[in-house]
Amino acid sequence: MSKLLIVGTVAFDAIETPFGKTDKILGGAATFIGLAASQFGVKSAIVSVVGDDFPQGYLEMLQHKDIDTSGIEVVKGGKTFFWKGKYHNDLNTRDTLVTELNVLADFKPKVPEDFKNCDFLMLGNLHPTIQMDVIKQIPNRPKLVVLDTMNFWMNNTWDELIEVLKKIDVITINDEEARQLSGEYSLVKAAQRISEFGPKYVVIKKGEHGALLFHKENIFFAPALPLEEVFDPTGAGDTFAGGFIGYLAKTKDISFENMKNAVIFGSNLASFSVEKFGTRRMEYLTKDEIYNRLRQFKQLTQFEIELN
Amino acid sequence: MSKLLIVGTVAFDAIETPFGKTDKILGGAATFIGLAASQFGVKSAIVSVVGDDFPQGYLEMLQHKDIDTSGIEVVKGGKTFFWKGKYHNDLNTRDTLVTELNVLADFKPKVPEDFKNCDFLMLGNLHPTIQMDVIKQIPNRPKLVVLDTMNFWMNNTWDELIEVLKKIDVITINDEEARQLSGEYSLVKAAQRISEFGPKYVVIKKGEHGALLFHKENIFFAPALPLEEVFDPTGAGDTFAGGFIGYLAKTKDISFENMKNAVIFGSNLASFSVEKFGTRRMEYLTKDEIYNRLRQFKQLTQFEIELN
Repeated sequence: MSKLLIVGTVAFDAIETPFGKTDKILGGAATFIGLAASQFGVKSAIVSVVGDDFPQGYLEMLQHKDIDTSGIEVVKGGKTFFWKGKYHNDLNTRDTLVTELNVLADFKPKVPEDFKNCDFLMLGNLHPTIQMDVIKQIPNRPKLVVLDTMNFWMNNTWDELIEVLKKIDVITINDEEARQLSGEYSLVKAAQRISEFGPKYVVIKKGEHGALLFHKENIFFAPALPLEEVFDPTGAGDTFAGGFIGYLAKTKDISFENMKNAVIFGSNLASFSVEKFGTRRMEYLTKDEIYNRLRQFKQLTQFEIELN
Repeated sequence: MSKLLIVGTVAFDAIETPFGKTDKILGGAATFIGLAASQFGVKSAIVSVVGDDFPQGYLEMLQHKDIDTSGIEVVKGGKTFFWKGKYHNDLNTRDTLVTELNVLADFKPKVPEDFKNCDFLMLGNLHPTIQMDVIKQIPNRPKLVVLDTMNFWMNNTWDELIEVLKKIDVITINDEEARQLSGEYSLVKAAQRISEFGPKYVVIKKGEHGALLFHKENIFFAPALPLEEVFDPTGAGDTFAGGFIGYLAKTKDISFENMKNAVIFGSNLASFSVEKFGTRRMEYLTKDEIYNRLRQFKQLTQFEIELN
């Protein structure tokens, strides 16, 4: 069985959407990635940090999903990273109201011994120096390293980001960030440019407009499932990444052909994540639901035209 | 062989994009629709109006594509409809600089005798009263009636638009217009609402983000081909509609399954249209190019995952 190591935030989120608002609930990139990847029955662990205000019940929920939490450091007297945001009516844009780094400010990741030989490494959105630190703790290069990042690191830690991009295989990034990172408006050109920084595979996430997978001259497109209601988009991109790497870790096949399937599963899982606040939908998601939705994805995109 | 009747503008466009600008060149919804549909070898005619400033060479080019132009009235001493626009750097938005209705202001469409028994009717974007006038000139209802419209008619001729929507089978409309027409933000809900106005099939065009086909509970998605350069988006939506109805007219199969193929061909042809200014690319497009691009569409969207 593949071993998947996930690095990223485990956090509190407070979310306001046109449909309602929450107090502090479970959030964080690594949380969403881990929950999505757990659907594929791989051996996974999260490396992160929380304060001692973090409920034990949340850790138990993750453990119940067969996620090793021994790499989640609990800082005595510390407070967990907190993000508060409010979505606009279109749910495509949001304002950040509060960001409290708290224990994340001094985070020194420690990869558990049992995962130093991981086959798959998912570097969730974090300071690129932390992402690099994790790479350096792993003596033999994993079969596949996937990195997610955001515009904040491009604005503030450009050089560190460029360094870590040299070490990875796949980058997942949204369309605006791809344009910023590459200086190209066309996503085709942006992906070419970004792959020159290091990652041979570039995944550009376009939210409700789906996701594009690029490798050399090849392009594959995974649509987002058109939904009647999007309830809360928080964590959709991380869920996508978790579904992507979880499927690859399960099948152990990192060919472009199989990555097509992986982005379909990423999009599939993300379509559930947005149905409820926070991680709620992902906690109770079943394999049957995923495979039923896979049928919808097939109906949505598969066509039969004879090439004459 | 099916008979396809196309109603819409035949016009002069002057276009400015980040890549260059043109003087008055050939444009108009019916022109783009007709050129796209001509790829499918159906018997087609355009009903429209131009002034006597309209070059005979343009009419001959259309005739050369086997498009009957006897329904294009040439008004002596009249001036052809003229639109001038400038695209912003993202090519997704544009400013209209000039709109001169000219002979279009008093346009009374006249369906040629030979097309009063048409099987397929494409009502290009025009005043809904003109669209209705054409429907009324056809004694036996065609096999399929497709209508394209825009926000201008929603703002200015709402009641007339709602009347004509009762008479049609398929509406093609862009995402913002679908939201305006339905009052719903979710495109799934928007399509449901719009189909209550009359059209059983709703096609929502999302430009570079592809197109969605809705019928009852069924949804199909045709991606746009990711392009390195979009040179001039003018006429892409009309080209999409022309490819859609041209393929249906050729195959004479108006099932939902076949409409999936039709939206793929619509998206296919539109991906060529944007490669050059105006109609230039469509005038010299070959069937081989279309079928080669169809292979790209298959590679872009088709995947193999076993449903276990």
